[in-house]
Amino acid sequence: MIGGGKDAFIGAVHRLALNMDGQIELKAGALSIDPQIAKESGEMLFLDPSRIYTDYKTMLEEEAAKPAEERLDFITIVTPNFVHFAPAMLALEKGFHVVVEKPMTFTLEEARQLQAKVEETGLTLLLTHTYTGYPMVKQARQLIKDGALGKVRKIWVEYPQGWLSKLTEREGNAQAAWRTDPKKSGKSGCMGDIGTHAANLAEYISGLKISQICADLHTLVEGRVLDDDGAVLLRFDNGAAGVLMASQVAAGEENALKIRIYGENGGLEWAQHEPNTLIVRWLDKPAEIWRAGTGYLSEAAAANCRTPAGHPEGYLEAFANLYRNFAQTLAARIDGVEPPAAALDFPGAADGVRGMLFIDKVVESSASDQKWTKFE
Amino acid sequence: MIGGGKDAFIGAVHRLALNMDGQIELKAGALSIDPQIAKESGEMLFLDPSRIYTDYKTMLEEEAAKPAEERLDFITIVTPNFVHFAPAMLALEKGFHVVVEKPMTFTLEEARQLQAKVEETGLTLLLTHTYTGYPMVKQARQLIKDGALGKVRKIWVEYPQGWLSKLTEREGNAQAAWRTDPKKSGKSGCMGDIGTHAANLAEYISGLKISQICADLHTLVEGRVLDDDGAVLLRFDNGAAGVLMASQVAAGEENALKIRIYGENGGLEWAQHEPNTLIVRWLDKPAEIWRAGTGYLSEAAAANCRTPAGHPEGYLEAFANLYRNFAQTLAARIDGVEPPAAALDFPGAADGVRGMLFIDKVVESSASDQKWTKFE
Amino acid sequence: MIGGGKDAFIGAVHRLALNMDGQIELKAGALSIDPQIAKESGEMLFLDPSRIYTDYKTMLEEEAAKPAEERLDFITIVTPNFVHFAPAMLALEKGFHVVVEKPMTFTLEEARQLQAKVEETGLTLLLTHTYTGYPMVKQARQLIKDGALGKVRKIWVEYPQGWLSKLTEREGNAQAAWRTDPKKSGKSGCMGDIGTHAANLAEYISGLKISQICADLHTLVEGRVLDDDGAVLLRFDNGAAGVLMASQVAAGEENALKIRIYGENGGLEWAQHEPNTLIVRWLDKPAEIWRAGTGYLSEAAAANCRTPAGHPEGYLEAFANLYRNFAQTLAARIDGVEPPAAALDFPGAADGVRGMLFIDKVVESSASDQKWTKFE
Amino acid sequence: MIGGGKDAFIGAVHRLALNMDGQIELKAGALSIDPQIAKESGEMLFLDPSRIYTDYKTMLEEEAAKPAEERLDFITIVTPNFVHFAPAMLALEKGFHVVVEKPMTFTLEEARQLQAKVEETGLTLLLTHTYTGYPMVKQARQLIKDGALGKVRKIWVEYPQGWLSKLTEREGNAQAAWRTDPKKSGKSGCMGDIGTHAANLAEYISGLKISQICADLHTLVEGRVLDDDGAVLLRFDNGAAGVLMASQVAAGEENALKIRIYGENGGLEWAQHEPNTLIVRWLDKPAEIWRAGTGYLSEAAAANCRTPAGHPEGYLEAFANLYRNFAQTLAARIDGVEPPAAALDFPGAADGVRGMLFIDKVVESSASDQKWTKFE
Repeated sequence: MIGGGKDAFIGAVHRLALNMDGQIELKAGALSIDPQIAKESGEMLFLDPSRIYTDYKTMLEEEAAKPAEERLDFITIVTPNFVHFAPAMLALEKGFHVVVEKPMTFTLEEARQLQAKVEETGLTLLLTHTYTGYPMVKQARQLIKDGALGKVRKIWVEYPQGWLSKLTEREGNAQAAWRTDPKKSGKSGCMGDIGTHAANLAEYISGLKISQICADLHTLVEGRVLDDDGAVLLRFDNGAAGVLMASQVAAGEENALKIRIYGENGGLEWAQHEPNTLIVRWLDKPAEIWRAGTGYLSEAAAANCRTPAGHPEGYLEAFANLYRNFAQTLAARIDGVEPPAAALDFPGAADGVRGMLFIDKVVESSASDQKWTKFE
Repeated sequence: MIGGGKDAFIGAVHRLALNMDGQIELKAGALSIDPQIAKESGEMLFLDPSRIYTDYKTMLEEEAAKPAEERLDFITIVTPNFVHFAPAMLALEKGFHVVVEKPMTFTLEEARQLQAKVEETGLTLLLTHTYTGYPMVKQARQLIKDGALGKVRKIWVEYPQGWLSKLTEREGNAQAAWRTDPKKSGKSGCMGDIGTHAANLAEYISGLKISQICADLHTLVEGRVLDDDGAVLLRFDNGAAGVLMASQVAAGEENALKIRIYGENGGLEWAQHEPNTLIVRWLDKPAEIWRAGTGYLSEAAAANCRTPAGHPEGYLEAFANLYRNFAQTLAARIDGVEPPAAALDFPGAADGVRGMLFIDKVVESSASDQKWTKFE
Repeated sequence: MIGGGKDAFIGAVHRLALNMDGQIELKAGALSIDPQIAKESGEMLFLDPSRIYTDYKTMLEEEAAKPAEERLDFITIVTPNFVHFAPAMLALEKGFHVVVEKPMTFTLEEARQLQAKVEETGLTLLLTHTYTGYPMVKQARQLIKDGALGKVRKIWVEYPQGWLSKLTEREGNAQAAWRTDPKKSGKSGCMGDIGTHAANLAEYISGLKISQICADLHTLVEGRVLDDDGAVLLRFDNGAAGVLMASQVAAGEENALKIRIYGENGGLEWAQHEPNTLIVRWLDKPAEIWRAGTGYLSEAAAANCRTPAGHPEGYLEAFANLYRNFAQTLAARIDGVEPPAAALDFPGAADGVRGMLFIDKVVESSASDQKWTKFE
Repeated sequence: MIGGGKDAFIGAVHRLALNMDGQIELKAGALSIDPQIAKESGEMLFLDPSRIYTDYKTMLEEEAAKPAEERLDFITIVTPNFVHFAPAMLALEKGFHVVVEKPMTFTLEEARQLQAKVEETGLTLLLTHTYTGYPMVKQARQLIKDGALGKVRKIWVEYPQGWLSKLTEREGNAQAAWRTDPKKSGKSGCMGDIGTHAANLAEYISGLKISQICADLHTLVEGRVLDDDGAVLLRFDNGAAGVLMASQVAAGEENALKIRIYGENGGLEWAQHEPNTLIVRWLDKPAEIWRAGTGYLSEAAAANCRTPAGHPEGYLEAFANLYRNFAQTLAARIDGVEPPAAALDFPGAADGVRGMLFIDKVVESSASDQKWTKFE
């Protein structure tokens, strides 16, 4: 693991997720650039002292030199955005599979290079678009794939958070500090951090691609540099229309990602706050409450549940699903067999490029007087 | 009453609403242009046969000629959009107060003329933007007025319906037929029918005015002429940003008007499907569930409740609130006294002009390549 | 109307309900035993001064003496419990149909006499068990009648209120005062006031009859005389088991009547706080959200809706449904024709007797050391 | 681990829970009495082959003989109820701390012996009453402890499941088979399996003790031996009244444990299906939605959250909280220091005895004609 020292947020989440199924063991870490924190963090995690590093280059170097049976299988990168690309490239060059937080890189150009490297090396990259790991998200995707709703006409995806309603970045909140700093976060704040999740979810569930956008980004808290709010009108490649709304200043909201998709025959609704439920509405009959862990789910959804219906699974389980599918895929590939279809269902480098493109394009569109901007 | 024969929808709703509080009695009607329907409808409503008309002009003529104590106090117009203006003008000219369905007229120009006539005559006009009649909508407005949320930054208002997901207008649905016909409905379908409600609600609760828009209207069902779906990016006069989404092809949705408004300190959420609840969220403490009929409501909200908390009031009561407030205002004015503040809280001609402006501008903006269109 | 002066609660509700559909007009009233209040209340309601009475006997006497076309069609009695029986008997004797608030009488014996008088006179009595007027309650009943759930095994009905959590009856609350006074309310407080509604609802929806009970009543607020809380274990005539819970000291609750019924194949859930929704659960497929105003409802439910889906109807509409069905029944009987099946669906004298029996038996059971008490 | 082979349910849940925080590692197992399953299960879990046992006695024997630094710290017992006592006693005798599934033993007498042994040895026992591991359950407990609701008057706890609505035990469902078999499950089915959870939760949150009960157990599915449904009237040691309802034949329900507690000033409601929310109601102000992961939680609740608000945590995290607290307690005790207060908050042997007493008493009360049975 690169990044994720004891003072970080998402690194701890990665560890909870990778621990859960007992298939993955954290063996080495360059957990912080602060040697003291790196050391203490590694000890807290019971790492072998010889595998606690203060520098990712040294770690990748030394670990790559170990014999196959001792070598790390993959590297997880949980640093701020501007430190994704270099370690990911190096890890791939050293022959490691890679897990990297989203957005995949700092610039679109880097993302394309990384994707090329993944293709060149034949290694596997997992991009942690966590929300696609929820079983009911997979069920929604399957229903649309199966044509249950007919042609998709309309997509509304929204992601309100309220935690940046004040100038939190100046009050000692480290998370807020780097995320609102263009040097560390990139050219967008809110859209880069959560808008990309929303766009990814919309494309993942619908199976469609965004083709044109009209964006309106805002910095609603005075004194902030990057956008903390925005809305994007969407057009999809099949002619469907959509709206994406994301905000980090929706005061009082937690992490309320929600999506609604409507087709000719019905619509569906999924909200991350109640992730085990998928509402499916029909034109001429009662709406239905599909639930995780039940017997009527599709294989794709069922494979991502751990407990029977009524035992709520949450964010960490969704996260663990990404890791579990990724690990199953690696294991199969290591064994030289084809991974099961369900295992291959995790976001990768192509999603990462698409996310970086989204950031580029919403920023471009928002700055433009012209209504529509082509999405590549 | 003009329009609202036994085959109509909204006329019956008006009657339920005006009956409820026992303050208003329907005495005469030109309920249909079909003489047979007009007659049968009038009889079903126990009208005096001499006051059942087949023609609104005759009705206004004859009723205006009656002695004061027999005269109608006001005229309700519940015809399709293209027959709002002429009867409303005539009624005002004959000295009657007027209740008219929204959108107020067929064109913006007519709306302005009607507003001028209202001002000229000093008569009172009620425009039935029903949703502003709900007590928790009034509570939301009051909370913002009182500054509880701080400066408003963000408004999201949405209005999904699904009833036009098919080409219902060709399947004998009279409601659908005129609403999708530009000759009867006007230059917009979805935005005229429900988008106006959403815009009105946003301005009513927030106390702000829309200043710029960027609209994207769609006709998602093939074979239809007018828009059946759309989204509008909004900017408000205080710098707040917003999104308005309306659709009549959100398959499986009923009438799911919902609004969320966020300020510096918190946010609120109200949904018409559960109208007796207002969710108020705060930055640093638990969200609150404000409920109709409770003892802690503002005077403005409490005056629009009829029963104690836990006895759900709905759409008809909200509608009746408009009539009750209007009737109290008329009664006070007839008595030559100032109506109570709560009674004056109903939508009027200025809202009607603003609604017609909204229709004009969203159509104009949607057709434009330019991103932003000034709202007046 | 007898009772229901301007200082009363339920009388006003009755008037809202009977006004709504424009089929019933209040023409006379003995609205209060206080002559001043009776007069002022009558004037507020635009009653003819000659038909404002201060004494129900005089009213019934004089109204009965009027010619048929002027006579009242029926009498509504909305006095406290101890003044139900005498006016109801007299009204029946004078040939009037009767509407009476629940519980029907003060004692079981009176209830039986009243039922006998109804049968003897052939007149019609409406007992306002309001909650059976909701369309989704009727849909629930129909689903069970149609066997959709299979044999009913389990019924849970609950009715939490919190308004008597303090000794409100000593703080000038007139409602609380008579309802907690055994001389005016009868031998039970909570169970008489709301427990009877819950029991009635359970029997109405399930089509079953309670056959044995085990009751545990409590007076949880010190200084109160009658029960303000209780629970009853139930056994039904088909072998089903049940629990009824009612409380007026469930602090913070409003009027949260809710019922769940489970059969061999599925279960259903209805809650008065969201009355337009009926949840239907199945063993092996997604739960369903049935909604008022939709096209898929049974005739019995649809006949009790006034507006399309998504226009919430509430407590007053449920109440108005009782009146509308009752009025349709009277109208048909006056015309000498058989009322339509849907119109006959309102609670009557038999329900009133059963309610009084419930009160008697829960009080008896609660006082007993023996577990089970036969329900008649 | 004893029990929990690859064909079992709760063993897998224990492993997910103990893995999550990276503090506990499964090192040895007697996972099945079927040697083949034991072997395969152990291999799947990457156990050292020498520590895969087919017999818990051998395992305890051999593991106890290992040097301290290799020895297991504790033993988890996840066998059916009738195989809890013997391995737990032996483990304690061998000096191991113990984790055991509820109900703690097969008989009340065994439970008392086990409790005595725990006291005698000074070892630590964790009984997995999972639902007490949820942060919002702990918040509820804290609110009551702090007196926020005033004196508790009323407790309603319910636990509907529907999975035994058919004779599932005869359809090859191993879970159903042993749970409905008195030889493996004990003298109660539904009350032993889920009623004990409900009773434990009520006492845990309220801080009260049940003092009297009146139980009514049912076997509603023909052909079944043990109860599959029941209700219990409760009286608590402070005079509060309550009702406990549990059913495994509430067709269509999943695992819908829910509790409501009312005091003089307000009430609270928690439901396992939406475990991150605690509704708190007040007499004279809006109800509040308290949420997991927020900054305003008590220390006891906050210590049991892993992620910020809006990242739903579920059943596995609640389960992991038991393990994490237990592990922290062990670690502190091993280090000879006092465990932190939050770590000591997990169910133990006393809860186990109380659960067995509950089973004994509800069965006794249900068979009795007398209304009330003393609880101990």
